Formats: sequence, structure tokens, C-alpha cells
Amino acid sequence: MIFGAKSRMLREALASRDIVRVVGGHDGMSAKLVESNGFDAVWASSFELSTSHAVPDASVLTMSEYLQAAQTMNDAVRIPIIADCDTGFGNNLHVAHMVRRYESYGIAAVCIEDKKFPKLNSFIGDGQELETLEVFADKIATGKASQRGTDFVLIARTEAFISGLGVAEALRRAHAYVDAGADAILVHSKARTPDEVFAFMDAWGDRAPVVVVPTSYAGVTAAELARAGIRIVIYANQAMRASVRAMNAALAEIRDSRSAAGLEDHIAPMRELFAIQGMEAWGRLPESNGQVVRPIPGSA
Amino acid sequence: MIFGAKSRMLREALASRDIVRVVGGHDGMSAKLVESNGFDAVWASSFELSTSHAVPDASVLTMSEYLQAAQTMNDAVRIPIIADCDTGFGNNLHVAHMVRRYESYGIAAVCIEDKKFPKLNSFIGDGQELETLEVFADKIATGKASQRGTDFVLIARTEAFISGLGVAEALRRAHAYVDAGADAILVHSKARTPDEVFAFMDAWGDRAPVVVVPTSYAGVTAAELARAGIRIVIYANQAMRASVRAMNAALAEIRDSRSAAGLEDHIAPMRELFAIQGMEAWGRLPESNGQVVRPIPGSA
Amino acid sequence: MIFGAKSRMLREALASRDIVRVVGGHDGMSAKLVESNGFDAVWASSFELSTSHAVPDASVLTMSEYLQAAQTMNDAVRIPIIADCDTGFGNNLHVAHMVRRYESYGIAAVCIEDKKFPKLNSFIGDGQELETLEVFADKIATGKASQRGTDFVLIARTEAFISGLGVAEALRRAHAYVDAGADAILVHSKARTPDEVFAFMDAWGDRAPVVVVPTSYAGVTAAELARAGIRIVIYANQAMRASVRAMNAALAEIRDSRSAAGLEDHIAPMRELFAIQGMEAWGRLPESNGQVVRPIPGSA
Amino acid sequence: MIFGAKSRMLREALASRDIVRVVGGHDGMSAKLVESNGFDAVWASSFELSTSHAVPDASVLTMSEYLQAAQTMNDAVRIPIIADCDTGFGNNLHVAHMVRRYESYGIAAVCIEDKKFPKLNSFIGDGQELETLEVFADKIATGKASQRGTDFVLIARTEAFISGLGVAEALRRAHAYVDAGADAILVHSKARTPDEVFAFMDAWGDRAPVVVVPTSYAGVTAAELARAGIRIVIYANQAMRASVRAMNAALAEIRDSRSAAGLEDHIAPMRELFAIQGMEAWGRLPESNGQVVRPIPGSA
Repeated sequence: MIFGAKSRMLREALASRDIVRVVGGHDGMSAKLVESNGFDAVWASSFELSTSHAVPDASVLTMSEYLQAAQTMNDAVRIPIIADCDTGFGNNLHVAHMVRRYESYGIAAVCIEDKKFPKLNSFIGDGQELETLEVFADKIATGKASQRGTDFVLIARTEAFISGLGVAEALRRAHAYVDAGADAILVHSKARTPDEVFAFMDAWGDRAPVVVVPTSYAGVTAAELARAGIRIVIYANQAMRASVRAMNAALAEIRDSRSAAGLEDHIAPMRELFAIQGMEAWGRLPESNGQVVRPIPGSA
Repeated sequence: MIFGAKSRMLREALASRDIVRVVGGHDGMSAKLVESNGFDAVWASSFELSTSHAVPDASVLTMSEYLQAAQTMNDAVRIPIIADCDTGFGNNLHVAHMVRRYESYGIAAVCIEDKKFPKLNSFIGDGQELETLEVFADKIATGKASQRGTDFVLIARTEAFISGLGVAEALRRAHAYVDAGADAILVHSKARTPDEVFAFMDAWGDRAPVVVVPTSYAGVTAAELARAGIRIVIYANQAMRASVRAMNAALAEIRDSRSAAGLEDHIAPMRELFAIQGMEAWGRLPESNGQVVRPIPGSA
Repeated sequence: MIFGAKSRMLREALASRDIVRVVGGHDGMSAKLVESNGFDAVWASSFELSTSHAVPDASVLTMSEYLQAAQTMNDAVRIPIIADCDTGFGNNLHVAHMVRRYESYGIAAVCIEDKKFPKLNSFIGDGQELETLEVFADKIATGKASQRGTDFVLIARTEAFISGLGVAEALRRAHAYVDAGADAILVHSKARTPDEVFAFMDAWGDRAPVVVVPTSYAGVTAAELARAGIRIVIYANQAMRASVRAMNAALAEIRDSRSAAGLEDHIAPMRELFAIQGMEAWGRLPESNGQVVRPIPGSA
Repeated sequence: MIFGAKSRMLREALASRDIVRVVGGHDGMSAKLVESNGFDAVWASSFELSTSHAVPDASVLTMSEYLQAAQTMNDAVRIPIIADCDTGFGNNLHVAHMVRRYESYGIAAVCIEDKKFPKLNSFIGDGQELETLEVFADKIATGKASQRGTDFVLIARTEAFISGLGVAEALRRAHAYVDAGADAILVHSKARTPDEVFAFMDAWGDRAPVVVVPTSYAGVTAAELARAGIRIVIYANQAMRASVRAMNAALAEIRDSRSAAGLEDHIAPMRELFAIQGMEAWGRLPESNGQVVRPIPGSA
């Protein structure tokens, strides 16, 4: 992969599609399923990543762990990774450090949010206190000043709606963040409808691309979002939530029937998992050490 | 967790249950679901781990990556982890290094197999060449000589059936491995029925605990295995295979309907994932920095 | 190594020696040299660790990187590691997470300081703002409530002198930290003499062990410190500073003479580095794979 | 850093200098000292890396640990890193995996050697058995087929002299490795003089660049090597050996004098270590969170 190529791929998707569709992942397998189902990019979700480590989504995992997961995902797929980086892991020093590392390891984009470090997940509690506009704009400026190429994408996320601050404050922050250099704005909302997001769009125009995450207002369609002028939609955690439901059902079946027999028709065959591993591509490598790495046989 | 406590917990389960039931996992979340569904231990599956990294199950991941995953799982649950360690990552030096690291980081047990390094997954190709009995027995002896406490569990896995070598060779190896110090024997098979495993058990008696992995002969029940004298059954990858099926379905639904609306009743609510994160336990910590970490509200 | 054994070893050293002598390290090699020169413990120095990564000592490295370095050091030596953990990596959640991880991986002790996250090195700038006493005491209480065994050591470090706050404030904080559960107090100072530290000791008595780091007042002797009632002295970075001086000289010699010939009598022979690697101990492992791991020959 | 830029920088140094001078390092600090003393590249030495982890130089450290160290060094300096990758960590699969990872993370070059995995350090024991020419050539071809850009450098190292095989075998292997795609040949020798290396050069001509590591024949000068047609000289471990000598002396002084007073004039001042950390560059970042990151004051 050529330096900056994934960032350019993301910018080209923005330029050529009515709306860019992105799904949350947390490891190589989830990223690969997002890709094979035709989506444009993977959201390296902080919430999914925390869940996969079984720790709270509260800045407990470190940038090392976030970056390593982003690299694993990026190595697994050809589509870009958009890395959810919470507050940027601290202050300006951390944002500068983060941008340099993520850019140099080929991650297409990072997203930072205007909460205070350490953050709490946006769906927990009420009225979380935001970082001041000035300090957060400074983080954005520092981040953009720290990148080496021209293509790396920095998305600024405002939690104004999450903190109950209304459209005017969301707009004020979004404009300031674009002034500071943000390449796109993520307007987060935990309302049951997209109304506040749409109100934001009415006043925003098309100054910079807007990103949304319809978790609580899941009823909205991509067409409705595109019509409102939104350029990127992130389905942040539905695939993982599907996996939790299915794993619990499979585990209950094994536990209660004392056998895995009943599962065979309801779970992916081994060969699908070998395909996720990329065994076929690797199987075309020259043989070595007397060990033949053949394309896998069709059966489980 | 007290040093060796997880190893003792595994030994006590062996002493007190008709059969110990174990399920494969690969990260904190999958480990926690195995625990919450009532199983006795987590199998840190090499196959699952490779799939989660989207690389072939062929010794591509390093011991660092295996150990880190085992630590993440171990930190997430109260039940023991049995770490699938392939061939032991090389020769005797690697086995010694592996036992010291896994034991000192609190992992209950490791399992090594009598393939040559680097290995290929047992369900790929035919007639994989085995390590000689003498060299593998030497690995076991080195591993057992390297542990510091008395409780750490080393399981020796023979691939005799996988390589088409028959019951006599499986028994010859199993006896030699126990002679060398193995605490248990895993007899792997990719037959469609448990017949060859049962034939092994008829001749084996109860010299040391026997472990099986009924992936290809999934129809067998825990009761049948227990009746044959088997002490541990590992359902190695069914939960992950359930998750792949479910994630693909969810991703197709989002892709085709251009919305996540249709998924809401079929995926786990956010609060189940917060529970996996352990937010409630962390919520009881004292407040700090003006940031209140309360038990999560019941809704998504 | 038995769970808690290194913590007990540190507590026993405190109980039995007039003063416990500790030297800073940052990797397996530096830790091993500290041990082989007869010191009682290794200080896993934040300053050294940042230097070894060539990043500012300003909370840029993550807890993952700190913990990994502490594990590498701990695996390399028989003596205890005291891990310099800056501010505890954030708020209470992070301190709880940190204590659980460090304790479960066998690290003897952690030290946290009453600066705000993210910190700056204490020798940079003036009048760094401290965390409030209440918030920091709460961190200590959370940390101690999070440990699982009884032996793990948490040292609370006050930067009152560094921030120019005087003896009364240093004492007020030290008492509060011990009230909150701290096992020892590190009183940091960047004065050119130990006077302010001795003034602290005059009023402190022996309520809890006191630790000092005589970097700027290097002229003091261990005997003088012991006489003042101090129980642990940390020579935090002198060994690394010696290595920088020597490496620069060696590099200049190679650069200027265009040969390494002149160095041979002034640098450690290869066999000393093999000894640091522990080749002799590993050389006694059984042979394997046709590869003989013999004790190394005496020559370079 | 632009993709492939460090590889091109190394190729340009080869094209423009009489001999490229490289020194071994193992962390960010050692890499930075190599750079600041004017050398052309850093050798990410397997021997130094093993020593820094206090484990044998016998393939005990994993590719994860090697790659992480190479990234840390690469992030710390502007000059290229040449990563000593032993045998390529296994078979062809590992070499393919290695090349993709190292290239995508911006490492300029890797070097693999024709020993069998797991390797032993070349200065230990006698007559280590080599990998067959065919298998190793196949590794090289696989590695070169796995790179994505055109600039990445793969150096093939022959241990023919180390194994006592003579010039003819060294030449036979070197030609085969270049036929397979190697960008350069490292001819290793543990003789006390450069005679066998020079004999090799007499017959080799200039088919591909040759690299040497004059550890045992340290008396040779860069001018003599250049005159023989050698294009890269690696001083593989002298800087670390200087640091071991100096650290031991400093530790003995502290231990015996019970004070660090005597060291002050013989060790680097704190400000030199702040400079290695790069505090000045970071100090020019915008201020944030009320925390001023100023260029460090001149004193310690």
C-alpha cells in the first residue's frame, strides 16, 4: 500500500458517492466481513474495541491498543480504516503523537471528539462536560500541523447534542473546528430521531463533509441522510451486537443440549473462516520446508 | 488472582466433574460469553485467533500475539484459560520461554502438539508430517522442567489420527508424552465419528486425563464422551462460527435495506455490551475528576 | 515466581536494611546490570523509558508501553521492580486498571504522583500545577481497593517541593496519602541540597517509609539519608546517563577513525552480553531439533 | 515520511558514497545517537535486541518484538533502519508476512540469513547447519514477490563462512540469492582478519552490493573495506558494548561509594537526555490544557 493511498481512497469515495457507508469493526475478521459485504470503510470503533477487551469504554484502553487494533484491521482489508480515537488520548502532545503514528502506519483517518480526557461512552449518563471550544480547536490545529503528507484525514466530532447543548452550540463548534483545519465533522446524537441532526444540516450547508452515527435513530435510511446533505454514515456497532446475540444462542445450545450437533446448520462452515484467514492467497506462495500450502479443500 | 490459582481451579474441575466443558474464544468478549454461559474454561483457540487477525492458522501469529490474547482473556474472566500453543513456537528454548511466560502471567494451562514448526491447521491438507516422538517428548520434559510452581498444566496433543497413523501410534505417543511429564493428553481427530477416539480410550484406561475436540464429529454428546472416560471436551470454534454467520446477515441487511432499522430486534442491545465491558463493577469505584462513573442505566 | 513474592521481597528489604538502594532501568539489560551490581530493586523509570523511546517524558508513552517494559525487566531479574507510573495514567478508573494489571503480572510496586494528567517531567519548567489533595487521595484509595492480594506496594509521590509549595504542604499531603492507604511516600525535590527533604523528615517521624530520588542533590550519601530516617533511595537515571556518554564516545571514535579497532579494550566483550542474555542457564536445557545449545565458549 | 522514502534513501546512499556506514541499535535512544553521530543507517541488531530483553539470541524474541523495536527506532530518526530479521521467523509464509509488515510500516530494509529456524547467534558453537540453498533462495523469491512497492530492500546473508564452508560455497550461495532477487548480500565472518571476506570480494566483482559486519576482525578500516569493493559496513554492537562497560562502572561507583556524587562529571547531563527525547521540537507545539510545553531550560 502506497503512503497516503488509503486516505486518498477515502477522499475519492467522498467525492464520488452520494453517501459513504461505513461499519464498525474491532479486529481483522470483523473488518474483513465489512469489506466483503461491500462497505466503503471500517470504523475502528472505540465501543467495540472496549467490548472486545471487556473493559469500560472510558479511555481505559491505551493508544497502543487502539493503534495495534487499527493496524490489524488495516492489514486485513483493502478499504480504508477510520479510527475512532476518543479525545485524542490526552492533550496536544498526544494528538501530535497520534497523528504521526496513525499516518505513518497507513491508517486513512482518525476521529477525535470534544469531550474531556478521560472520556465516558456517549450513551452513559447525562450532561457530560465538554472540552472548551478553544482547547479542542487547538488540538485539531496541532493534529493537522503534525501530519506529514497532504491526504491524511482528521475528523472532528462534536458531542454538543450528547451534552444537551442544542443546534447553535453544535454549529458554533463545527465551524470553529473546520476553521482549525478539520477535514470533516461528525455530529453525534443519541436522540431517537434524526431531527436534531437534520436541523444542524439545514444551517450547515456544505462547508465540510458531515458524518453521522445513527445508533439511537436507527430507523433513518441512507437515502434520507444523503438527502439532508450528510456525506458519511457509520453503522457503529450493529455487527458486533449481532455477534453477541448469536454467540449467546450458540453457547446456550451447547450448554443445554450437551452437544454441538444442533448448531451445524446455523453456523458458518470452517471453510468460511479459512477464507477470512486468506488461506487461498497464501496458498499460492511457493512451497517451502517440505510443507505444501495448498488452497484449502472445499469442505469443512 | 493468586499465583497458580487458575491452574488449581482447572485441576479441581477435573477432580470433581464427570466431564469438564470448555469453549473456544479469542478475545475478552468471547471469553466472557463462554464464562457467562456456564462453561468451565476457555480454550484460547489458535484457529479463532488466526481468524480474528485474518491470517492463516499456520504459525504466522507470534507467541507475543498469542500470549497477549491469552492475557486479555484471562483478565476478563474468573474461569481458567487453556492456551492452544500450537507446536510451542519452535524448539525446546521456545517451549521453556513459553511455559515461564504463560505461568508467570497466570494462564492456567498450555497445550502443545506434535506437529513440526511451523504448523498448518489440522483440517487442511493430508498427511502432515509429525515431529518425532523423541523430540516432542523432550519438549514436554523441557516445558515441565521450566515451570516454577507445582500446579501449572501442560497438555500434550497428538496429531497421530490427523496424520492417519492409527490407534497404536496414538497410544505409543500418548504414553511417551505422559512419561515425559504431560499432565493430560489431547487426542485430536478429524473423523466424522468419535470411533477412533473411543478406540483409543478403550486401550488407554485412566492413566492421565484425555481431552477431545469434537469439531468434525460434532454429533457426539458430552455424556457419551464422559462414558468413554474422556475428562475434557473442547467446543473449539462453534461460537465464532455462529458470530460469522450472524455478522454476515446483519451486514447484508444494512447493505441491502440501506438502514439498520430491521436489525434492532435481532441484535443484542447496547446494555448487554456495556455489561460485557464490566461497567457495573467499575461504576462502583469512587468518583474522580468531576466524572461520575455510575452503574449504567437499563436502556440502550 | 509465586504471586506477591516480589512485593514481599521488597517489604522484607524494607524491614531488614538500614536503607534500600534502588537504581533506575528501562529494559531487561539495564535491570540485569542493576541486579548484578548488588542493588535491592529496579526503578522502572519513566524518564529513562521515555528517553529509550525518544519521546518526551510527558505521558506520551502509554500504560501498555510502561507495563510491557516493567514485565520485560521483571522477567529478567530476581529482584523487585518498582514501576514509576506517573499520574496513574488518568483518573481513578485508570489507577484501578493499572493496579490490577501490575499486580497480576507480578510487579512488586507502583509509584504514582500528585501531578495532573498528562504530566511533564519534574525537571522541566516551574510551578507545575498539582492535582488536588482530595482527588489524589481518592486515586490512592481506589488503587489500594483494587489490589487482590495483601502485599502489593503502592507508593504515593508528592511533587509539593517541585511545585515550590514548602514543607507544610508536603507534610499535609503525605499524611493524607498515608491516610488513604499509601504504603510509602516518595518526597521529590529538585533542590541542589537535601535540606528540604531533611526538613520534611524532621517533622514526619516514621509514620510510613519515605523514598527519595537524589538527582539534583547527588552529593548526599546513603548513610546521611538513612540517618535522616529515609528508607529507600532511588538513583533514578545515572546508569543511563553513563551509557549515553559512553555510546557517544564510541560512536565518535568509529566515525572519526573509520574503524572500531580502537574500542576493543574499552567496551564489554561479547561474552558479557551473552551472559546478560542468560545463555548459560538456557544452555543447560535439553538439546532439541538437532540443535545443541551449549554453554557459550569463553571468548568473544 | 512518504511510503518507500527510507528505502530510497538507503538506495541513494549506496549510489553516492564510497561506503555506507551503519551502526547497531536496539531502541529509540541508541538509534538517535547513531543518527546524531553522522552515520547513514541503523542496524536493528538481533544480538542487541536479545541482550536488551535479556534473552538468548536464539529466535526467542518474536517477530512482533523485532518489528515493534524497528518501528520505535524508525519513528525516532530520519535515517533508514536495516532490520536484522534472523531466518525470517520460519518458512516462506513468515517471510511473506514479514516483508509486508516491515514494508508497510516504513522500514527501509530487512536482512535474512541462511540458517535454519530457530537460529543460534553466529558467535556461539561451531558448524551450525545451514538451510539448503534451494529453500533459502525460495524464501528470498517469496519475500521479493511479497513487497508492494519497488524500493524495499531485502538483504540476503550467507553464513557459509560461519559454518566453515569456504569461499566457493559462499559464492555459490551469494549468486543464487541474487538470482532469486536479493538486493544485496551480507557475507558474515567470525575470522580474526578480513582475509576470507576479501577472498570472496576478489571473485565476486560488483554483481550486487556486499555488506560486512567486522565484529571479530575489528581492526579493518572503512577505507580498506571500500577498496575491496564492499558497499556497506555494519558496526553491529560496539555502541551497546560501550554502554555495558559504562553502566557497570557507574553502578559499581554508586554501590561502593554509597552516593552518585562521583559520577556527575562522567555522565551525560539531564539536558542531553531531554534532547534525545526531542523535547525541543515538541516544545514548539501549541500550548494546551493550561500546560505549557516550553523548550527545556539549559541546565540539568
